[in-house]
Amino acid sequence: MKIYDTQTAPTPRRVRMFLAEKGIDVEYVQVDLQKGENITPEMRAKNPIGKIPILELDDGTCISESDAICLYFEELHPEKPLLGRNALEKAQIAMWQRQIEFGLFMQIGMCFQHSTGYFKDRMTPVKEFGEVSGQNAGKFLKLLERRLADSRFIAGDEFSIADITALCSIDFGRAVNVRMSEDQTNLKRWYDEVSSRPSAKA
Amino acid sequence: MKIYDTQTAPTPRRVRMFLAEKGIDVEYVQVDLQKGENITPEMRAKNPIGKIPILELDDGTCISESDAICLYFEELHPEKPLLGRNALEKAQIAMWQRQIEFGLFMQIGMCFQHSTGYFKDRMTPVKEFGEVSGQNAGKFLKLLERRLADSRFIAGDEFSIADITALCSIDFGRAVNVRMSEDQTNLKRWYDEVSSRPSAKA
Repeated sequence: MKIYDTQTAPTPRRVRMFLAEKGIDVEYVQVDLQKGENITPEMRAKNPIGKIPILELDDGTCISESDAICLYFEELHPEKPLLGRNALEKAQIAMWQRQIEFGLFMQIGMCFQHSTGYFKDRMTPVKEFGEVSGQNAGKFLKLLERRLADSRFIAGDEFSIADITALCSIDFGRAVNVRMSEDQTNLKRWYDEVSSRPSAKA
Repeated sequence: MKIYDTQTAPTPRRVRMFLAEKGIDVEYVQVDLQKGENITPEMRAKNPIGKIPILELDDGTCISESDAICLYFEELHPEKPLLGRNALEKAQIAMWQRQIEFGLFMQIGMCFQHSTGYFKDRMTPVKEFGEVSGQNAGKFLKLLERRLADSRFIAGDEFSIADITALCSIDFGRAVNVRMSEDQTNLKRWYDEVSSRPSAKA
């Protein structure tokens, strides 16, 4: 099995960090997004929408979407749960994971794609939307600051996939100047704890 | 337990259809989005981002995000699986569910929100982005047409949550003139089958 990965991109980092938390080693194959290596016919046969990461199993079956890849490994290696242990925990983690993805990760991603025109050869950037997305990300950080006043980690008392997604979002946010502010002390406390985990270097 | 629902909106329909497939009856409480009943302080205490649906358990615990609500019920009532039976099925369904959500459901939603200005009292519509989103949805329907040439349902041989999300997307697409075209015969065959299920009326 192997994972098609891009070392510098925020989405595949989520999978690398998830697997590092679980202590699972997988072969990574680097794909250069800027050169368009992800949208060749060969790669589109693995994932029609041309996105990275992709998990390729030994029989050639391909699973794309970082969440789906993480779910696959969680099911096979449940011993250190990152998606929850029971119905309520799973739902609460899925809820936070979603809210972080839509409210933060995607807003930062859209800000990057639409403000910089990095992928303008394969999409239509709308500069004004990029700006709105960056502002939305900033608003979401305020919500997260309030959440982290009551909770050690994002989804509760234990580290979960939602923390991984939030960390990868905030680190990538620097590229578009979306940053935690000095007075967001709960967010800062959480960020320092989560970013010092060995998996954050994956 | 009860679910805060909006009968006319596409997202809560996904949960209603999921529960109808499983034969689970839950009390629904209607919330008027246009009047802003979803963003009152009382509702924001249940879901800070002010979105519907929300599942409220008898002890007051609230779960928002349609995917998270569906996962909660799948875990408690696994007998008719809509999220897959094993690691591979679960990952494949999650992958398709994601791709439908990002490539179709969200594109149609963004087209609606940004083109019509329906929620302009609570977000910044960017008309040009709305148009791009509608075009993206049209492109994704072409990808789905190719997929359904090889597969009875979206994620494989069995009906899953990905079919629910796709059906709710396509039905809502009419509001912004995103429609299947006459020559998309595989999509049409799938649509006729899925939309004739009793759960589609939920």
